[in-house]
Amino acid sequence: MEFNLSSVSFVSEKNFLQVDVSSVYDVIIIGGGPAGLTAAVYCMRKGVSTAIVIKSIGGQMAETSAVENYMGYRYINGVGLVDKFKEQVQQFGIAYDEGHTVVKIEAGAVKSVWLDDGRKLAARSIIIASGKSWRKLGVPGEKELVGKGVAYCTICDAPFFSGKRVFVAGGGNTGVESAIDLAPVASRVTIVQMLEKLTADKILLDRLFGFSNVDYIFNSVVSGISGGDSVSSISIKNLADGTIKDYNADGLFVEIGLDPNSSFTGDVLNLNEHGEIEIDAMCETSSEGIFAAGDVTSVRFKQIIIAAGEGAKAALSACEYIMLSKK
Amino acid sequence: MEFNLSSVSFVSEKNFLQVDVSSVYDVIIIGGGPAGLTAAVYCMRKGVSTAIVIKSIGGQMAETSAVENYMGYRYINGVGLVDKFKEQVQQFGIAYDEGHTVVKIEAGAVKSVWLDDGRKLAARSIIIASGKSWRKLGVPGEKELVGKGVAYCTICDAPFFSGKRVFVAGGGNTGVESAIDLAPVASRVTIVQMLEKLTADKILLDRLFGFSNVDYIFNSVVSGISGGDSVSSISIKNLADGTIKDYNADGLFVEIGLDPNSSFTGDVLNLNEHGEIEIDAMCETSSEGIFAAGDVTSVRFKQIIIAAGEGAKAALSACEYIMLSKK
Repeated sequence: MEFNLSSVSFVSEKNFLQVDVSSVYDVIIIGGGPAGLTAAVYCMRKGVSTAIVIKSIGGQMAETSAVENYMGYRYINGVGLVDKFKEQVQQFGIAYDEGHTVVKIEAGAVKSVWLDDGRKLAARSIIIASGKSWRKLGVPGEKELVGKGVAYCTICDAPFFSGKRVFVAGGGNTGVESAIDLAPVASRVTIVQMLEKLTADKILLDRLFGFSNVDYIFNSVVSGISGGDSVSSISIKNLADGTIKDYNADGLFVEIGLDPNSSFTGDVLNLNEHGEIEIDAMCETSSEGIFAAGDVTSVRFKQIIIAAGEGAKAALSACEYIMLSKK
Repeated sequence: MEFNLSSVSFVSEKNFLQVDVSSVYDVIIIGGGPAGLTAAVYCMRKGVSTAIVIKSIGGQMAETSAVENYMGYRYINGVGLVDKFKEQVQQFGIAYDEGHTVVKIEAGAVKSVWLDDGRKLAARSIIIASGKSWRKLGVPGEKELVGKGVAYCTICDAPFFSGKRVFVAGGGNTGVESAIDLAPVASRVTIVQMLEKLTADKILLDRLFGFSNVDYIFNSVVSGISGGDSVSSISIKNLADGTIKDYNADGLFVEIGLDPNSSFTGDVLNLNEHGEIEIDAMCETSSEGIFAAGDVTSVRFKQIIIAAGEGAKAALSACEYIMLSKK
């Protein structure tokens, strides 16, 4: 077995290399969240030539305030953990591209990856770790008022709602975490939950119940958002009797889940009914030499530690595949 | 859904609880390596009543000197990382038992777990994270000279070989890591590798080749060990021509891999040809309500970050199973 080491450096080089459109990499990693960054470290330690294409480093991890269930840190903020991951990747002279998204991939012995600026990259294997994006409500006013009171990332946008009256759509872990982050900042927080109770973990609920400025509307959904320069009111529909009531509001955080960033895979890979990439226990997809890890996959639980573990698995599976294909 | 919270405490109790033979726990976790400890944190955060049975905390992680591929730490020693994991588990009032091994399990709606001191524990679900143990050579003299020059855990035992002449059986990652740890301590280190070259990662080989007191015997295996109070010589067999040659030696580190600690599962679970517990991508075994994670499973790659991720998955799968079975 011979690895292509031409573009890889193991000296204490701290600079990322530019992605080279004329190279055929051993691996191209798509995504810079916990799965993608872990895959990068494992590929580089194996000595295979690797490029990583990142829309925005850290992915959802960068949007998380308190991380309390990543083993090794009893408490760390998301950005702090991203920095630790990035530092580990930076030990190696990896080819690194940040700020672009992948629009298309193509299978084959040499696979192709197209970026949104027209560049085409080539590799023997691909690891897809492109994560998820916030799900939209799809109600009137949402699109028009994004950034004007309609928000998705609480850790990013909570500070803009100091002293304001805000609503949170969603009463699962994401919604409850959002309310916990908003309660110390906003004047009043109302969780709108479609079920008859909150479904978050007990440890989060215990924390939520410590705030006196949080209340709840159950069996209900947000059905519309109104405002001009900024949100002024939201409409809430009771699912039991169908009635709709309007509430004055300065802001709405939409915390109803996330959709996988898998559309660029076209019909190259099998997706499940949620649009997630189907993988097996070794992170193999339905297409030979293409692997996937983290939140974009069919693995049901979306956690930093799980994504990191899956990223390591995908990398080791990809390295095995490369070794065999070069024999 | 209702959880049994009677034996769980979310106050800042730092003491472990005693394991109670009269309780039916929601989950019993077997094993205290990265997979078991991560499963413990995830179960406790979900608020399910949990007991953890540990032979020796940390498992192989506690026997590792330099950990450089656990994301979040560019460098940490194994014991340091074990301490971090333990600290996270200790936030919760988990029922904790250390120092005993599991000798038998039984399936059923309520499952049984027997310890080596005769105690029998009961739970609705089990997570097996019992890891692996060092594989033996099975050659004459090995059993008799364990602890008298025959060693398995380099990080544990290297300091006893200061200025000594040692051999390492095995030229994969484990063997090469062992030689790297021994070279600065021992007078001379010889790696005995059954293949025609070393098969460790490039980054490890680069480090190994920096030592001038390490040499290699390829296409060969250790066929016997001699000595009285301590090892005096070892016999090495050339696999090409069948010749056996004796070498003076003070010590031998056996680094030929590990065997899964799965024998206590009897015929309750499906094992693969290596004796590993077969699991799917959600850490489900062949028996309902019994999950497995980490090195004891059929997941091929044995890494701390992967074991931790799998432990989280197993815990979340077990919690889902408990919720459904209590409905």
